[in-house]
Amino acid sequence: MIIDSEKASPLGHEFHDPRVVRVGMLGFGTVGTGAFRMLADNREAIVRKVGVPIEVTRIGVRDLVKPRIADRNLITADLHSIVDDPQIDVILELMGGVEPAGELIERALLNGKHVVTANKELLAKKGTHLVRLAAKQGLDLHYEAAVGGGIPLIQPLKHQLAGNDVLKMMGILNGTTNYILTKMTEEGLDFDAVLKEAQEKGYAEADPTSDVDGFDAQYKLAILSSIAFGKEVLPDSVHREGIRGISATEFAYADMLGYKIKLLGIVEACGPNRILARVHPTLIPKAHPLGRVDGVYNALWLEGDFVGDIMFSGQGAGSEATGSAVIGDLIDICRNIRLGGAGNMIPFEYGMETLPIEQVRSRYYLRIQVKDRPKALGCIATVFGNCDVSLAGMEMKTLPEGRGEIVFLTHPCIEGQFLRALKAMRNIHIVDRINSWMRVEGTA
Amino acid sequence: MIIDSEKASPLGHEFHDPRVVRVGMLGFGTVGTGAFRMLADNREAIVRKVGVPIEVTRIGVRDLVKPRIADRNLITADLHSIVDDPQIDVILELMGGVEPAGELIERALLNGKHVVTANKELLAKKGTHLVRLAAKQGLDLHYEAAVGGGIPLIQPLKHQLAGNDVLKMMGILNGTTNYILTKMTEEGLDFDAVLKEAQEKGYAEADPTSDVDGFDAQYKLAILSSIAFGKEVLPDSVHREGIRGISATEFAYADMLGYKIKLLGIVEACGPNRILARVHPTLIPKAHPLGRVDGVYNALWLEGDFVGDIMFSGQGAGSEATGSAVIGDLIDICRNIRLGGAGNMIPFEYGMETLPIEQVRSRYYLRIQVKDRPKALGCIATVFGNCDVSLAGMEMKTLPEGRGEIVFLTHPCIEGQFLRALKAMRNIHIVDRINSWMRVEGTA
Repeated sequence: MIIDSEKASPLGHEFHDPRVVRVGMLGFGTVGTGAFRMLADNREAIVRKVGVPIEVTRIGVRDLVKPRIADRNLITADLHSIVDDPQIDVILELMGGVEPAGELIERALLNGKHVVTANKELLAKKGTHLVRLAAKQGLDLHYEAAVGGGIPLIQPLKHQLAGNDVLKMMGILNGTTNYILTKMTEEGLDFDAVLKEAQEKGYAEADPTSDVDGFDAQYKLAILSSIAFGKEVLPDSVHREGIRGISATEFAYADMLGYKIKLLGIVEACGPNRILARVHPTLIPKAHPLGRVDGVYNALWLEGDFVGDIMFSGQGAGSEATGSAVIGDLIDICRNIRLGGAGNMIPFEYGMETLPIEQVRSRYYLRIQVKDRPKALGCIATVFGNCDVSLAGMEMKTLPEGRGEIVFLTHPCIEGQFLRALKAMRNIHIVDRINSWMRVEGTA
Repeated sequence: MIIDSEKASPLGHEFHDPRVVRVGMLGFGTVGTGAFRMLADNREAIVRKVGVPIEVTRIGVRDLVKPRIADRNLITADLHSIVDDPQIDVILELMGGVEPAGELIERALLNGKHVVTANKELLAKKGTHLVRLAAKQGLDLHYEAAVGGGIPLIQPLKHQLAGNDVLKMMGILNGTTNYILTKMTEEGLDFDAVLKEAQEKGYAEADPTSDVDGFDAQYKLAILSSIAFGKEVLPDSVHREGIRGISATEFAYADMLGYKIKLLGIVEACGPNRILARVHPTLIPKAHPLGRVDGVYNALWLEGDFVGDIMFSGQGAGSEATGSAVIGDLIDICRNIRLGGAGNMIPFEYGMETLPIEQVRSRYYLRIQVKDRPKALGCIATVFGNCDVSLAGMEMKTLPEGRGEIVFLTHPCIEGQFLRALKAMRNIHIVDRINSWMRVEGTA
């Protein structure tokens, strides 16, 4: 067992001036501006909590021309000069993207600087290396803002919930898709129309891939899973499906059956050192705590062996909420610098086994179109029965020319069984079309 | 300004044996048993997080005869021998009550031991003194379990949310009363009947005073307020009303108007160093996040100037959930012992001004009985108008003999104004009786 929390030696940080903590920022976009404003607006209270003032002494940006709320003299395009500045104690990395952010953080740590980052993609892909480097250097690397914006999730998982074996987590981890799905639910609109509106309002990017195809949630679930289960979970081992192509019909049926459709990140313990992690559109009962989290809100629902089920919710993105998490981390680091305790990180090991999605045990929603409604039900029920999939509910609609649409809800079964049933159904001549299927969570 | 986070000198703890952390427990009731079981059941994972094993070496109880799940050899009735035992590193105080718990914790701190406590009454009444003593000694005093059972609330408030000016907090802080109010809502039963059932099920104590009269919630709100606003808030400065005497009629009207009745702890910033804190039955919209927290669940809703509104919910009591918080604290302390960083506490000062309840700005629910329904409305509306209280909603019911029952909802006003209106109403001869009134929170 390797424990990367062992501080080999107190290398790291030399405290330059006991009367002030000096901060360098990399990136000054949405999150950077929010963090900077919080430091300015709540300066007095923050000084009281830290014991000394926090001064932002350098801000690195890509575009020097763009107007900024910070003093022009602080701003530079030479990012390396910031991580190399011997006067700076803490780096806030708020630029995003894997490189050059990763290289800059590594250099900052090697230069003995503590780091706060909100960079979920970098952490998901290279977090283990960076956390180990920080621990080896006796430095803090904090990243509360990377998941759930301002909602405290990462530190509570690491600390207050640390005694629990986590059994299952389910999260609404992406505000853009939750906004889109909420609009589709409430207004019966199609995906493309809502996406366009979200882009106009600034809730979705011009290229929405990272959000709507589930990459953003995949990174965040990988980070949460790594912490909850104490071993590295890389994003590639998290099954991922986005929300494109969910039709308005599905929302109507979900509503009729008492469900909402949410893009959930779900991870479950499946035995020692074995988990199954996945991001996909999911039917969740309206009465489930997650079924009530709408709009741009994020939430994490967690089941631990001792704590039972708990939930955290709030604004998962935005300048101010995310800035709040960055400054919370910064305050902790400043107190650690003054009073000791930096680099005290929970171990982060390798060797987690992740199961493929075919092995998941889930309930399923299935919508199919049949040629001959009276005969179809018997045939389909037989196929389900042959594959050991038992049915929990059903809705039917008559279509023209004797056709019909049938929606099924199954009891829990292994996905492989369900897929076998689907395959068999494709060979039944009265089944016109398998319109869609989705996984279902929560007790009805 | 006095900052009690200053560690005068690294007095405190001497680390006795680097191969194990030794723990002494005071009290072995519901919470103690849960914490002990968690340490045993999840031993391997906890050792991995701490780096060394945690051993419970002494358990102090009042009743030596009662059967326990722990080895008899560990158990003693001599509590002082535990806090004086030079081999013990950490004390878990889980006995409750102000004394002798307070004296034992003080002695443990003076003897250089870190402390975890779940004792809300002690912390509310003497927490400032104990926290300052711990900080002076360079020791940790953690108390996550004191509020909200297993839900991480205290540490997130101290750390991840530390950059925020807290504007308002509202919490369902007592599981017993929430269970009783939920039952009264769902089953239309009277308080006495539900209390009896709760006592039989073990959800309420034989003497239910602490819960149903709001003392327990008052202690918890005092603790949360002290942390959120950075200055000591004593329980006596928290206005307190319990849930006795809420009639089934109120639940019926609340439901009709789209509300639930909850015992809320509410604290608001009212200017620099000035807050108003109160515990009382409150009408809260069914659609508000707190309106959906039922049964024995607890929740804290918080509004910060940067983080916006966030919410935490989960099981607020019980052996396992509360044990989870105790062990989370213990793991943190053990890591601080091994890696440094103990005694790093956020300042806790004196000098908070708390406003009296008459100055609260709230909406109100009022139910009155009138002799002459047709004439009454005009008279009452005039009284409200004269006191500058404007009306937001109304329900009426015809009673025998020309009498009627009227329920009003007001727009926000200062409580003093509302009370003046009530007083004036008592002098109107067609007003038979002022049946009841309650404060209303949340936007409808």
